[in-house]
Amino acid sequence: MRFTIKREELLKGLSVASRAVTSKVPQPIFLNLKLDLNEAGLFITGSNNEYTIKTRIPFKNENGEEIIRNYKEGSTLLQCKYIVEMVRKMEGDEVTLEVLDSTIATISDDKSDYHLNCIRSEEYPDIDLDVSGVTFDLKTPEFSQLVEQTAFAASTKEQRPILTAINLEASGGVLTATATDSARMARKTIENLNPDIEFVANIPARTMVEIQRLSEGASNISISVTDKKALFEFKDTIVHTRLVAGDYPNTKNIVPKTTNYTLHVNAAELLKAIDRANVLASERENAVDLSMSEEAVNVSSSSVQTGSASEKVEPFKFEGEELKISFNSTFVSQAVNAVGGEDVTFRFVGDMKPFVVENDSDPSIIQVVTPVRPF
Amino acid sequence: MRFTIKREELLKGLSVASRAVTSKVPQPIFLNLKLDLNEAGLFITGSNNEYTIKTRIPFKNENGEEIIRNYKEGSTLLQCKYIVEMVRKMEGDEVTLEVLDSTIATISDDKSDYHLNCIRSEEYPDIDLDVSGVTFDLKTPEFSQLVEQTAFAASTKEQRPILTAINLEASGGVLTATATDSARMARKTIENLNPDIEFVANIPARTMVEIQRLSEGASNISISVTDKKALFEFKDTIVHTRLVAGDYPNTKNIVPKTTNYTLHVNAAELLKAIDRANVLASERENAVDLSMSEEAVNVSSSSVQTGSASEKVEPFKFEGEELKISFNSTFVSQAVNAVGGEDVTFRFVGDMKPFVVENDSDPSIIQVVTPVRPF
Repeated sequence: MRFTIKREELLKGLSVASRAVTSKVPQPIFLNLKLDLNEAGLFITGSNNEYTIKTRIPFKNENGEEIIRNYKEGSTLLQCKYIVEMVRKMEGDEVTLEVLDSTIATISDDKSDYHLNCIRSEEYPDIDLDVSGVTFDLKTPEFSQLVEQTAFAASTKEQRPILTAINLEASGGVLTATATDSARMARKTIENLNPDIEFVANIPARTMVEIQRLSEGASNISISVTDKKALFEFKDTIVHTRLVAGDYPNTKNIVPKTTNYTLHVNAAELLKAIDRANVLASERENAVDLSMSEEAVNVSSSSVQTGSASEKVEPFKFEGEELKISFNSTFVSQAVNAVGGEDVTFRFVGDMKPFVVENDSDPSIIQVVTPVRPF
Repeated sequence: MRFTIKREELLKGLSVASRAVTSKVPQPIFLNLKLDLNEAGLFITGSNNEYTIKTRIPFKNENGEEIIRNYKEGSTLLQCKYIVEMVRKMEGDEVTLEVLDSTIATISDDKSDYHLNCIRSEEYPDIDLDVSGVTFDLKTPEFSQLVEQTAFAASTKEQRPILTAINLEASGGVLTATATDSARMARKTIENLNPDIEFVANIPARTMVEIQRLSEGASNISISVTDKKALFEFKDTIVHTRLVAGDYPNTKNIVPKTTNYTLHVNAAELLKAIDRANVLASERENAVDLSMSEEAVNVSSSSVQTGSASEKVEPFKFEGEELKISFNSTFVSQAVNAVGGEDVTFRFVGDMKPFVVENDSDPSIIQVVTPVRPF
């Protein structure tokens, strides 16, 4: 294999694929990137076994300008951290990469001449990147919002792996994304899906976040799901992810059906008040108290060792008896941010019952948070 | 004690003093800031016992506008991390601080109302901030350059505490700053000092870096030195630092007197070449090789496991026989950056002898680096 390539384009491709090469990989082979030059272009693949990114650099760009020239087809494995670092630091407009005898590659321009040990590409695990199963398209901003509004609510702990996933379910023309760490839940729906599309898939939330970042700037994202894998394709890149095994917990009945208290409040003012009260909440695991009556809304926190904080929140509208509820400040702040909107609506059943955070002007997103015991 | 104060001014004062409140303090009392309001203004003191920062907020600013109003003199100790965080997150133009009964302070504005446990100021250690000993002034840019050109060469390891200091010596109208970690040395001289000023002081390098940051924007810095402490005064702030005990090693003869090889080279090109060769030098403790002849200058590195790098450096001028020398890339890059200038001059005695890095147009700064064994 050999080719001369625009350095900026190579760097872009390497950077995309290298995002799958995480610090913890199950086998050392995943510390490599696979470079594969064939009649369709240069393909760069990176993987951590959980998810895999394959991106293509075409021979010519959209304007017909040459990106890759003077090439010979072939493939190799190069240690990710070195090749990315080299190409980033080189200065030439073009760099030339050549595999000398399947164990050494040279990467060079006018000033620099690197020899980098490499491995035969046959050593790389086989990853099935063929599109199969149910396939549908989403606009990228729609997909991006779905991830932003739900992923944070998934668990980051590995004790119950299924909770580290976003549960995606398509049925009756509606795509529903659900994430929960068992103390709070986020649910987003996208309507007007083709009603023939039906599937359930549990996709690692952190992979969804990666895909969201990678797909920035693309207009569409094509999603294919089988019972083993999901593929996300956008522009010149395809991401393969394994599904999380196991059944997702039944979250259908988590959203409370009754409402005994309703609070409408300015979202930005509430977030700032929570943030300030939280300064003194570190000793009680970021628990802050929200006290509501028709006269006033207060966010507070207190600790014997350090002191107390009390914050007025205005403007607001509260319906119901007086209520005081304690919650994890991070959970509520993330929920308020996720529902978006200038004002946010809380619906409470009682001081120890899960409550709803929503945005009256966007019924597609709902957040449920379980209170904590007051201290 | 009570006062109402412009929040921005209070925050500035708290931020300055809190820089001395480091994560590791010898006693918990140093986790507090001391606030002291008297007829001269509000004084805020922070310390980690090694160095102490005391800053003043005056009652009125330079334009005669009121900063502090409605006050009652007094003092208290407040937990640094909480008071800084509170005042940073509050929103009012003014905040009011009041010590209720020597154990609780209230910090409040229109929206927020904090109660913070506090401690009587008498509990705070006594730190002698009185000016005494030898005193002289430096322009802040001069002081800043002195620190930037030397501090990085001091040791960061505590095995030989004396090497963590910058050795300041005034004699015969010259101020000399020396730093060495025993593998390299940086020396800077400032001339035209009052010849009556004579002293030797070993000041912790990291404290010097802190003072440099804090004094940004001040025009002058006044330095007083006794055999126990040094004081640095600028604008409304005074920094006290303990000296490092012990004798500084004799560095007079470290600068080699003979030169067998001289290399003049473009500094930016050399730095970039070292940076690129260093990509493959991690297995050999960042050692890179510099090969010089009248025909070519090359920076290279190699490792059995990963590969090799070779970099041409141009333009250059080399005088002497062919020479190859190995060095720690960080040491040489820092030395080249420190001497400044578009071109940099290296003077070598031999491949295993300490060599000089200097700037022909600025004889006030000299760097010496010991080579490493070639691999």
